[in-house]
Amino acid sequence: MPKSKIQPHPESSNNFQLYNHSLSLLLDFYQLTMAYGYWKAGLDKKEAVFNLFFRRRPFQGGFTITAGLETVIDFLKKFHFDSSDLAYLESLRDADNQPFFEPAFFDYLANMKFACDIDAIPEGNVVFPYEPLIRVQGPLIQAQLLESPLLNLINFPTLIATKAARICIAAQGDPVVEFGLRRAQGIDGSLTASRAAYIGGCEGTSNVLAGKLFGIPVRGTHAHSWVMVFDDELSAFQAYATDQPNNSVFLVDTYDTLEGVKKAIEVGLKLKQQGKKMMGIRLDSGDLAYLSIKSRAMLDEAGFTDTKIIATNELDENIIRELKRQGARIDMWGVGTNLVTAGNQPALDGVYKLSALRSPGEDWHYKLKLSEQMTKVSNPGILQVKRYMAHDEYVADVIYDTAKGMTSQVAVDLFDPTKLKRINRSWKSHDLLVPIFRQGTCTYDRPSLASIRASTQKELSYFYSGIKRFIYPHEYVVGMEKSLHELKVNLIHTIRQQSMLEDGSQ
Amino acid sequence: MPKSKIQPHPESSNNFQLYNHSLSLLLDFYQLTMAYGYWKAGLDKKEAVFNLFFRRRPFQGGFTITAGLETVIDFLKKFHFDSSDLAYLESLRDADNQPFFEPAFFDYLANMKFACDIDAIPEGNVVFPYEPLIRVQGPLIQAQLLESPLLNLINFPTLIATKAARICIAAQGDPVVEFGLRRAQGIDGSLTASRAAYIGGCEGTSNVLAGKLFGIPVRGTHAHSWVMVFDDELSAFQAYATDQPNNSVFLVDTYDTLEGVKKAIEVGLKLKQQGKKMMGIRLDSGDLAYLSIKSRAMLDEAGFTDTKIIATNELDENIIRELKRQGARIDMWGVGTNLVTAGNQPALDGVYKLSALRSPGEDWHYKLKLSEQMTKVSNPGILQVKRYMAHDEYVADVIYDTAKGMTSQVAVDLFDPTKLKRINRSWKSHDLLVPIFRQGTCTYDRPSLASIRASTQKELSYFYSGIKRFIYPHEYVVGMEKSLHELKVNLIHTIRQQSMLEDGSQ
Repeated sequence: MPKSKIQPHPESSNNFQLYNHSLSLLLDFYQLTMAYGYWKAGLDKKEAVFNLFFRRRPFQGGFTITAGLETVIDFLKKFHFDSSDLAYLESLRDADNQPFFEPAFFDYLANMKFACDIDAIPEGNVVFPYEPLIRVQGPLIQAQLLESPLLNLINFPTLIATKAARICIAAQGDPVVEFGLRRAQGIDGSLTASRAAYIGGCEGTSNVLAGKLFGIPVRGTHAHSWVMVFDDELSAFQAYATDQPNNSVFLVDTYDTLEGVKKAIEVGLKLKQQGKKMMGIRLDSGDLAYLSIKSRAMLDEAGFTDTKIIATNELDENIIRELKRQGARIDMWGVGTNLVTAGNQPALDGVYKLSALRSPGEDWHYKLKLSEQMTKVSNPGILQVKRYMAHDEYVADVIYDTAKGMTSQVAVDLFDPTKLKRINRSWKSHDLLVPIFRQGTCTYDRPSLASIRASTQKELSYFYSGIKRFIYPHEYVVGMEKSLHELKVNLIHTIRQQSMLEDGSQ
Repeated sequence: MPKSKIQPHPESSNNFQLYNHSLSLLLDFYQLTMAYGYWKAGLDKKEAVFNLFFRRRPFQGGFTITAGLETVIDFLKKFHFDSSDLAYLESLRDADNQPFFEPAFFDYLANMKFACDIDAIPEGNVVFPYEPLIRVQGPLIQAQLLESPLLNLINFPTLIATKAARICIAAQGDPVVEFGLRRAQGIDGSLTASRAAYIGGCEGTSNVLAGKLFGIPVRGTHAHSWVMVFDDELSAFQAYATDQPNNSVFLVDTYDTLEGVKKAIEVGLKLKQQGKKMMGIRLDSGDLAYLSIKSRAMLDEAGFTDTKIIATNELDENIIRELKRQGARIDMWGVGTNLVTAGNQPALDGVYKLSALRSPGEDWHYKLKLSEQMTKVSNPGILQVKRYMAHDEYVADVIYDTAKGMTSQVAVDLFDPTKLKRINRSWKSHDLLVPIFRQGTCTYDRPSLASIRASTQKELSYFYSGIKRFIYPHEYVVGMEKSLHELKVNLIHTIRQQSMLEDGSQ
């Protein structure tokens, strides 16, 4: 398949420009009722810190690839309520047929100017459960209003970049192309997936609009319908080769796969006489291991040792790995549905939790949400993640509170407090979250999509390779800085005691 | 939870207006290379018929609900290549660094005027595998270019409308609200899902933008963060009740669920003194059966027999059915991730296949795609579906060729030709596909979203109720009109013989 050597349109580095509509109502209604409540209760001057993180490793894998930050930036740059948004909110009535919100609240919303600080882990990084991917610090109401849009804009691309990275690992260096438009969940379900799949390692997409918007190489040749339009398969291949001699990949399974290969070879011989090359054949059904091995032998015997075999048909990382194990002779993989929807796990379980609150001029109050399950108790503080490297390999991530810093050089396991990891002072380290917005203004110099894609592979290479296993992957160490862990435990005890006391008093 | 008694903005009946960008490149690249090939080969004057259908019952259920047609109509009304689309295509280079397309082809695309006839099954209908949901008849190149966009715009909403209908069946008449924005696949992954979920039977959404665009009632009260902002849970509930006395649903599980219920009751008693009502409590974690039964008893004992219990937390139709079986006292269900992504099956397997072709003034050549598997052989003809009713119950659907009509009054099972169904002449019947476009002009009078939603429930009620079972659902009869079936078999034999002859000749 050919490369399209194109540059993205300079103004078109994201899919957000697609929208001409205010997206500030892309939120859950409870964010507005809470914002209204905070405003009514005079709490709108409070400053809050929220962290966006996920809890479960997607696909039970050993790593996750971040994506989506660029769209978040565009969303935040445009964040405002326009007159049609406010008119809609004014039209809403509660159960007693009363307006939900009093008129002065609409003035408040209309005059709201985005003023938060945003820190985030850049796209194409390797991340783990409970690490804050985005930290929002700013006016309580604004930080609350960002909950659902940020989750929507981060959860999905992060999931797909991770899936793509897994599929590329299974393909062991063979090119993987994303073919998912027809089965994707909505229009930007497809576009967001194309971009995230490219970040994760795919080398192209069939989606032409994704090519135009993001500069991703586009790929494609012909479908079964092309073959069916002609009287027979040979004429169809011949016509295709005549029209597009430099894009000669023949889909051979419209009627009978190996018969189709014979006809491709016939046409390939004619191409050769013209000094052209048969670039490939595509298999889209049947036993792909058997058919690729047979096709390879037929192609080689006819002298087409350079002709590639491309496979499509409900592939995913497990099927590709199994086909490799069976000796399939496939050179390039086209993956659709299971890549762009993530197949067996269609959502990342990202959440957005309050971790600190203060009134102007006061100290921070650290906050957490309790739960019967320790895995659902959120982490308090103004969180950051430090990643340590020893001998060119990453050895541990430590979640710490920026107000306190890495005071103790000891990390406590997130769920087993008896497990400690001592941080060696000789290890190199860097903070994962970097400043994106300061007081509402974007201060971040956006990397190109190509450099994000390169960073995915580079970052993955610094980890022990066992994190890439599909079954029982190596568990990379992620801990919590000891004093932050102690603060969390104390906070849990305080809340539980308070709850018991209230219980006893009744 | 309150109702928002609002009307959709008259100009805002769909999410397509969100886009200010030409979406005509929302297609797979091979559609363009094929279009170019047809144009080069002088085949652009040919007239083609394509059918969009799915093969596998989503969720292994007994029925499927169509959705997405409205967005298809908007897409087709705007279909054209603008100058930026053409500039992008001109920039593409093949493997030999040559332009993919010659300049005259861009003139052809720039001057292309949409001229197809479109017939489709309206939204909110009950449909089955292999029934054409959309039939496109028109210039070969145009019909080919619509493949991926139509699949993208139909597959996903049809999947979600079906999922929503299943969830509503499990809820046995309890209201179901869609809460999926944060986990949806992209921005219009969420908006499209909200609309489709409403068609399938949900009574509202948390997504405010979906409320604004489609007029769907919006729902929501407060999150855990509201409780965490206050010094204790009681103050949080009290503040919420003061600000929004007509939207008083308290989320009780921030610290300890049953303690939270006690505090809700305290605040509820104060509301009562003010002549207000505590509308509900929400449970978002833990053993929902146990907690709802205990909460119900506590509420009832305190005199809050009208206060509703709302449950959320990774619900789907199977969990809701199981909770019902366990005697859970839940009155309203908020469903997110597993509704808007379809959870266990995130894609409908819709395909788009050529079924007939002719040159101007000639007879139709019927077309099919062979496959080793009979289930993947496509159906030839200009297809329509007739649905028969006997004694107020639908009894059979028959796929037939409009050129021939229902000549035989006998339907052949789609995959077991020994199974025949005789059509009784006394049965009432109607055609499922109705005209949507004629020669590129929309002739369809769009129903309102509310009437689409109502038709889902009405149509479902005309089927034997066993199609709504989740396990081994009743299989509704869908057959192929006998003469069309014979034509298909003959076509298969002809192609297979041709293939054998060609094989023998080598």
